[in-house]
Amino acid sequence: MSLDRERISRFAEIVGERYAIIDQSEIEPYVNERRGLFPGRSQLVLLPGTIEEVSRIMALASETLTPVVPQGGNTGLVGGGVPDDSGNQIVISLKRLNLIREVDSDANTMTVEAGAVLQEIQSTADDADRLFPLSLGSQGTCQIGGNLSSNAGGTGVLAYGNARELCLGLEVVLPDGRIFDDLRKLKKDNTGYNLKDLFIGAEGTLGVITAAVLKLYPKPKGREIAWVGLNSPAEALRLLSLANDSAGPMLTTFELISEIIVDFALKHVSGLRRPLDSRHPWYVMMEVSSGRSPEHARGVIEDILTGAFEDCIVADASITASIAQFEAIWRLRDTMSEAQKPEGFSIKHDISVPVSAVPEFIELARRQVLDVEPDARIVCFGHMGDGNLHYNVSQPVGGDSKAFAAKYREMNDAVHAVVRSLGGSFSAEHGIGQLKRSELLATEPPVAIDLMRAIKRTLDPSGIMNPHKVI
Amino acid sequence: MSLDRERISRFAEIVGERYAIIDQSEIEPYVNERRGLFPGRSQLVLLPGTIEEVSRIMALASETLTPVVPQGGNTGLVGGGVPDDSGNQIVISLKRLNLIREVDSDANTMTVEAGAVLQEIQSTADDADRLFPLSLGSQGTCQIGGNLSSNAGGTGVLAYGNARELCLGLEVVLPDGRIFDDLRKLKKDNTGYNLKDLFIGAEGTLGVITAAVLKLYPKPKGREIAWVGLNSPAEALRLLSLANDSAGPMLTTFELISEIIVDFALKHVSGLRRPLDSRHPWYVMMEVSSGRSPEHARGVIEDILTGAFEDCIVADASITASIAQFEAIWRLRDTMSEAQKPEGFSIKHDISVPVSAVPEFIELARRQVLDVEPDARIVCFGHMGDGNLHYNVSQPVGGDSKAFAAKYREMNDAVHAVVRSLGGSFSAEHGIGQLKRSELLATEPPVAIDLMRAIKRTLDPSGIMNPHKVI
Repeated sequence: MSLDRERISRFAEIVGERYAIIDQSEIEPYVNERRGLFPGRSQLVLLPGTIEEVSRIMALASETLTPVVPQGGNTGLVGGGVPDDSGNQIVISLKRLNLIREVDSDANTMTVEAGAVLQEIQSTADDADRLFPLSLGSQGTCQIGGNLSSNAGGTGVLAYGNARELCLGLEVVLPDGRIFDDLRKLKKDNTGYNLKDLFIGAEGTLGVITAAVLKLYPKPKGREIAWVGLNSPAEALRLLSLANDSAGPMLTTFELISEIIVDFALKHVSGLRRPLDSRHPWYVMMEVSSGRSPEHARGVIEDILTGAFEDCIVADASITASIAQFEAIWRLRDTMSEAQKPEGFSIKHDISVPVSAVPEFIELARRQVLDVEPDARIVCFGHMGDGNLHYNVSQPVGGDSKAFAAKYREMNDAVHAVVRSLGGSFSAEHGIGQLKRSELLATEPPVAIDLMRAIKRTLDPSGIMNPHKVI
Repeated sequence: MSLDRERISRFAEIVGERYAIIDQSEIEPYVNERRGLFPGRSQLVLLPGTIEEVSRIMALASETLTPVVPQGGNTGLVGGGVPDDSGNQIVISLKRLNLIREVDSDANTMTVEAGAVLQEIQSTADDADRLFPLSLGSQGTCQIGGNLSSNAGGTGVLAYGNARELCLGLEVVLPDGRIFDDLRKLKKDNTGYNLKDLFIGAEGTLGVITAAVLKLYPKPKGREIAWVGLNSPAEALRLLSLANDSAGPMLTTFELISEIIVDFALKHVSGLRRPLDSRHPWYVMMEVSSGRSPEHARGVIEDILTGAFEDCIVADASITASIAQFEAIWRLRDTMSEAQKPEGFSIKHDISVPVSAVPEFIELARRQVLDVEPDARIVCFGHMGDGNLHYNVSQPVGGDSKAFAAKYREMNDAVHAVVRSLGGSFSAEHGIGQLKRSELLATEPPVAIDLMRAIKRTLDPSGIMNPHKVI
């Protein structure tokens, strides 16, 4: 059913004309995601300013069977937050609902609206001498509603968990416009089914997340990073085990990084330098946080490295000597996604396997990739501590990017077959969206698909809530 | 529909005669829980020995519309695991499905069947130099299937989370007999809706949990307990804040304990002694764990206490000097539930509030309780670090236990009204079962109730799965 002028007016009335975008040039940034993989169209983008407006929009959408796409900072990587190209879907952007309603530093919680930008949440926590540990490359743009809808991961998951684990309470507008208010500040609550965690990670297909209660943590008094050069992922696994034993929950980041992505970053991003003078096929970036002092964090990280040198696990290592160096290393890590772009077309995989299977995955996947394209460049980096790697494959140097792009599906299939053989996941942290929907439907056990479909039908019987995403 | 002989035979055939209990004297322990609050009846208890048998039982139950009650160690406190008194419900005990299928110390996971006893899981982890941190008073009897179905809490939640957070993968037999196999070892997996966490905490009303992948942690190399005497819950809150700041995730237990329950324990349980010679209205039992060494744990706990003495928060404190003393304090803590029994009838509350509201809750609830019964004895202890208290009320000394028991509902209402006024939960860790179902239906927001009912109808359309529990 196409959107006629009358229906557009009824929706526009809810938010007021100023916040109902109908001009195509203004609509453009809301219908395309940044990689340009899912060109969409829409005749109407709504910017509600209150929860009640969101509720009225959904009630009207439900009455008129109008498909709705909720959108946060539009930084998602799987096309979950943009409309399809039919032109019949309307977009609800949550950007105006960006209030930080409360910081409760006694209860260690923060109550925020969905449109609050992650970086602002982080700095508000910091001002209250607390830590909100969710941390991603896109934190200057992404919004917490989108982070929760996609159960975002990032570099802090090892010690603090995904977005899901960082959320105590939720407010959701259901597809029929009713408001599910579960904004509790409780660490423990066993009153009935866990509804909250069904909406988290549902990518807006079961309702619109409008607000959340987030967990805050004590701000570490000391953080130290070691940048370690190694010969193989197997050595990285041994180092992880050693670091876990020695630092336990103080180990807050453990990233595996291949040499090629460091080269890309140094070549394409200005102001970076190599953390180690010597070159190694693999690096680990490891962070230890202490609630006590910088000296304590340093002592723990030194102990880990001493053990690692004794066991001949590491080839070379450096510990950050200054705040500037600490920030430079984080910057190097955060620019890795961006640094791949100038190297041409890249076929991406966001996979996880049991942590102990990471070295085996890297070896098996390498063979598969080179079978598909012998000159492909494997760009592997990511959250080894969580068993989650960004296993990307860049086109051959000087090759034809279109010819390489044509191998997208074949390459995915080859890599994901290895993932499945190791009991892994082909979507560790980015979600399903449009990009991986057909693969989900083809490879998840039929019982799981049936259950997901049944839940979708139950909560969204008319199928208006972000249709054709996920399931 | 009552169970006729033919139907009983068909069910019995699935597990074999030996494992189909029909003798009433043998059935008795399966139909009554230990407090005797929910006397039930049944004509048939099945003890399946394989997942496939559970699947065939549910398929037959579905075909014949036979209501089924899944049962673990039968240690639940809300009547969630016992049949009603109609005699028409059959019980599936998971006790024979007790295999520990695998310990993967590289991936830090353990795969277990539902009937494995918690203590055996703990000691298997220990043998592999790992920690499975779920820890409850009933750990010698309760089974992991029940722990997951009720999302059990206990004393380790502060650092490691509830049962839900300790589970990576799940296997569930659905009400129609299909098997939902989600036994993954992944720390991160964003492939579609979070089904696992819907079954966890559903108290067997959405399916039968038959196996799980559990998270293991590095075994701490040092654990130290401080037993601290204080004048008020407000001081305990200040101590918690200080301990959090100083120990961060190394703070593994923080229990608030009122004087009266220590008296009860010393009076009724042999072999215990007071951890401190001096008497105080309140105590905190605080544990710090270190991945490095006993000296490190001791140093951290000493630092916390030094700060607390300087700030005049604590009146007196002792740190355990030996393993025997460490174990004696844990034993004192673990016997607290049992120690209440000889003191007569007790009206129990398993509540949580935001951590910062614990002192206010204790003050407000005290007034309400004494309004209902001026001579009542308030027995308050529990997991202050999680905002979760066992707020029990024992009958007046020498009073009439029946007259006191008659005030159960009135007392519950008074205490739970305070809980609600503080944004709390009237079931923090024990669940809903039969005990709290009517209160759930009466006090949860109608939208939440509607959602839970819709999910129940979707997954269990015939209503055979542990009927009349939770929702």
